[in-house]
Amino acid sequence: MSTAQMGQQQKILVAGQWRDSDASESFQSANPARNETLPERYPISSWSDCEAMLDAASEAAEQLRSVPANQIADFLEAYAKQIEANAEQLVSIANLETALPIKPRLADVELPRTTGQLRQAAAATRSGTWSMPTIDTKANIRSCYEAIGPVCVFGPNNFPFAFNSIAGGDFAAAIAAGNPVIAKANTSHPGVTKLLGELAFAAVKETGLPSATVQLIYRLSHKDGERLVSDHRVGAIGYTGSRRAGLTLKAAADAAGKPIYLELSSVNPVVLLPGAVRERREELVAEFVSSVLMGTGQLCTNPGMVMMVASAETNTYIEAVAAKFAGGAPGTLLSSSVKKSLTAAIQTLSGAGAKVLVGGTAVEGKCSVANTLLQINGAKFLSNPEIFQTEAFGNASLIVVADSIEQLAEVLRSLEGNLTGCIYSAKDGSDDASYDAIAGHLIQRVCRILNDKMPTGVAVSPAMNHGGPYPATGHPGFTAVGIPASMIRFGKLTCYDGVRQHRLPAVLRDSNVSSVTWRCIDLKWTVDSI
Amino acid sequence: MSTAQMGQQQKILVAGQWRDSDASESFQSANPARNETLPERYPISSWSDCEAMLDAASEAAEQLRSVPANQIADFLEAYAKQIEANAEQLVSIANLETALPIKPRLADVELPRTTGQLRQAAAATRSGTWSMPTIDTKANIRSCYEAIGPVCVFGPNNFPFAFNSIAGGDFAAAIAAGNPVIAKANTSHPGVTKLLGELAFAAVKETGLPSATVQLIYRLSHKDGERLVSDHRVGAIGYTGSRRAGLTLKAAADAAGKPIYLELSSVNPVVLLPGAVRERREELVAEFVSSVLMGTGQLCTNPGMVMMVASAETNTYIEAVAAKFAGGAPGTLLSSSVKKSLTAAIQTLSGAGAKVLVGGTAVEGKCSVANTLLQINGAKFLSNPEIFQTEAFGNASLIVVADSIEQLAEVLRSLEGNLTGCIYSAKDGSDDASYDAIAGHLIQRVCRILNDKMPTGVAVSPAMNHGGPYPATGHPGFTAVGIPASMIRFGKLTCYDGVRQHRLPAVLRDSNVSSVTWRCIDLKWTVDSI
Repeated sequence: MSTAQMGQQQKILVAGQWRDSDASESFQSANPARNETLPERYPISSWSDCEAMLDAASEAAEQLRSVPANQIADFLEAYAKQIEANAEQLVSIANLETALPIKPRLADVELPRTTGQLRQAAAATRSGTWSMPTIDTKANIRSCYEAIGPVCVFGPNNFPFAFNSIAGGDFAAAIAAGNPVIAKANTSHPGVTKLLGELAFAAVKETGLPSATVQLIYRLSHKDGERLVSDHRVGAIGYTGSRRAGLTLKAAADAAGKPIYLELSSVNPVVLLPGAVRERREELVAEFVSSVLMGTGQLCTNPGMVMMVASAETNTYIEAVAAKFAGGAPGTLLSSSVKKSLTAAIQTLSGAGAKVLVGGTAVEGKCSVANTLLQINGAKFLSNPEIFQTEAFGNASLIVVADSIEQLAEVLRSLEGNLTGCIYSAKDGSDDASYDAIAGHLIQRVCRILNDKMPTGVAVSPAMNHGGPYPATGHPGFTAVGIPASMIRFGKLTCYDGVRQHRLPAVLRDSNVSSVTWRCIDLKWTVDSI
Repeated sequence: MSTAQMGQQQKILVAGQWRDSDASESFQSANPARNETLPERYPISSWSDCEAMLDAASEAAEQLRSVPANQIADFLEAYAKQIEANAEQLVSIANLETALPIKPRLADVELPRTTGQLRQAAAATRSGTWSMPTIDTKANIRSCYEAIGPVCVFGPNNFPFAFNSIAGGDFAAAIAAGNPVIAKANTSHPGVTKLLGELAFAAVKETGLPSATVQLIYRLSHKDGERLVSDHRVGAIGYTGSRRAGLTLKAAADAAGKPIYLELSSVNPVVLLPGAVRERREELVAEFVSSVLMGTGQLCTNPGMVMMVASAETNTYIEAVAAKFAGGAPGTLLSSSVKKSLTAAIQTLSGAGAKVLVGGTAVEGKCSVANTLLQINGAKFLSNPEIFQTEAFGNASLIVVADSIEQLAEVLRSLEGNLTGCIYSAKDGSDDASYDAIAGHLIQRVCRILNDKMPTGVAVSPAMNHGGPYPATGHPGFTAVGIPASMIRFGKLTCYDGVRQHRLPAVLRDSNVSSVTWRCIDLKWTVDSI
């Protein structure tokens, strides 16, 4: 590509200014549907950009301490409105950069989900209940979660809105907990991230928050990324993305004692018990195919592994799924690198002995891989559980056929940590004994257990847990989705011991002014004042 | 010492058996008051002991999943009774091994605190509220904390009961959350730990818990310690002790994705604002001296640093403290290694330029160091904040005299993470502007802020936070003291999405059988059923 075809280098948002990055290098994103590089150039920031952001974020964090919760909520709501007012443009750029369909996915599902999250976060900030005010009246000891300090957010490639580093779940949770955010764009959709950054910053100005409450860069060297997450000015980090990059950042953050919340890979095992297959096979075929191919399979909760017990019905089930896979046109993947890793993962699985029932190959000239179904038996799986848990991120899934419930239980016991685990069982109770024999093994290895449904719908519910034991995430006690629980990640538990009334945070004073804040007073939850 | 003087090698508790360790080496503890080695030999376990414990703990963890909460509570209460029934012997051995006074410390304070913790943990387990059951009735999504898996507990040298790895706060919290515990004794008091282990195991048998619910070893090589905390069978780790050993274990656990909760060093800054000193100087002298010399200063919340603003009253205050330090006989330290590190820390501080006002030297022939008071001005402190934050664990404290409130604020801004921060201010409000100028800086750096009281009393209150930003602990969102909050550390947040009623954990079912479990249903806390 000649220089003439290159667009202007985009500006970064630092300390309340859209300004040139101190960068010697740049990158461009691509349109995966047309296999074309997009013209805009985005800077690869140097450490001096980070220095400036960290200083500004520290100052903003101090200022935010005295900003009323309602003002932070106003910002989140103003931002949601900005997003809605610019929905058409946002959806169009997101589609260009990710090839995710405009309808229903981007316009009707992901964008409303994103504004919904921002509004739920606003409501949580207003209510104050998220901070779990806990009061011991006799000892006059009081505690609550409060802002942890500047939060760095690294967003993934697969949700240009709902997990975007400057608009998604981590962003909303960090801001709602009272922290400034340093957003690092996902490099596969910098354009939509920049536009979101502009809307966020407009909302910051509109609601009078400290101007460095939101800051944005597009890319960093790996070395500077590690330096950023371990900097003393950082409070915490939210990261969603590949395991390799995530674990590198985790090592750096851990060594500096910085809480880092990761959402990494997961194969999301789905168990189809024999009675359920017998009872409603066609339904189960449809549910699985729809779930595994949704978004071309590029969801962290994609059902990448299905477990069944060998039988004639199981064979019929697999044949029906294979037919549907073969009959469906494969969707466009998010990027050529996703295509490359998906192809490699399929090769790893088949090379290790999984049989390719359908697909297995990349589509030439397109950013696509054929819908791929693989199969293996339980004994083979158990011979090398690690390799057969290779995540094939995209429109592919592995069916494991065990020879018995006992072997299926063994397979479950060999699994590493996952986000989700599903068990389908017969409605008439005929699978109940099998369920009891396996559920405990699965529950220990996931943080969300589902009955009779696929894992791909991650409702933004206060009771949701989008998390999992390592290596699905870095800690099984936290969730990345669901408000207010996801906000706790960005809170520091602070105890006020004998502190005078007028110096206490509003939520810890005797009088519950708002009368909407739930507080745990002497081990009882109440909205009453003391 | 000849072999004849050596006692028998003590047994370890593994998989429900007191048995010989597979050890090639052993160690003995000492009586610090008499500077004598004690006869009993304790094994330094090999990895094969760990293997056996990890297997047994995994099995116990699975069995505990179906043990009712009430039975776990029965165990905790039975154990508390066992401790009380054997109080005299426990106190006597603890005194022998640690030189902590029998009365009031061991018999009247620490032992009742320990049984109180066990009973609070029992009550929390019975009520179920600790698990924060959260229900979204519309979506039928439900979540709660549940057992995280086998917990390794490493106890500190300074609390033979209340933080003992097989009786203290981490133990009680881990068990109450439904986990088996692998206890690693503190090597300075293996005898009291062994007796506690016997009582705990008797209570296990009495209440019919899985026999590997409690297991005990005394010592490990550093390499095996790292291997233990990173083993795939481990759920989480609780560690209280020195920073160096703690950070080594943290690195190993972090790399394996295992949650490790650390309680490390802290200098616990105390600010005495000018008005408070003017108003009630003698009271402040008495409070500080009593707090800093309590337990010969060997408390994690010991006030190791006092900050004041230069004035004639400040000088008078310091002179009065110095006189009390000089007039008081130094207590016996926990071990010769504590004596050695305390002496070294004092040398580090004075070598860097702190003036020794009183003490500063080890007492020859005794396990003691003279009560030590050091002083430095704010400018000097700011020239090398790191070195002047060296923890002098024991009966020593550093007074920092700033030339202004502004400089005092700078000193606070240079501090690393601590457990506590105290501010004394005048009752008449004359310090209020100064308080406002400094409090924000202090609060960001500690997890417990106190007004007009010393940090050494750590009440076992639901609102307590005994934690702090790194390097005081590994994560500022957790507390090691206070029930039920400390139990969360040993919980895995698990979401039940569309799971059938009879398969749900008791606390998540529609009917709140106990009617004492507080649950957050559709964002409202209640004890009602659905």
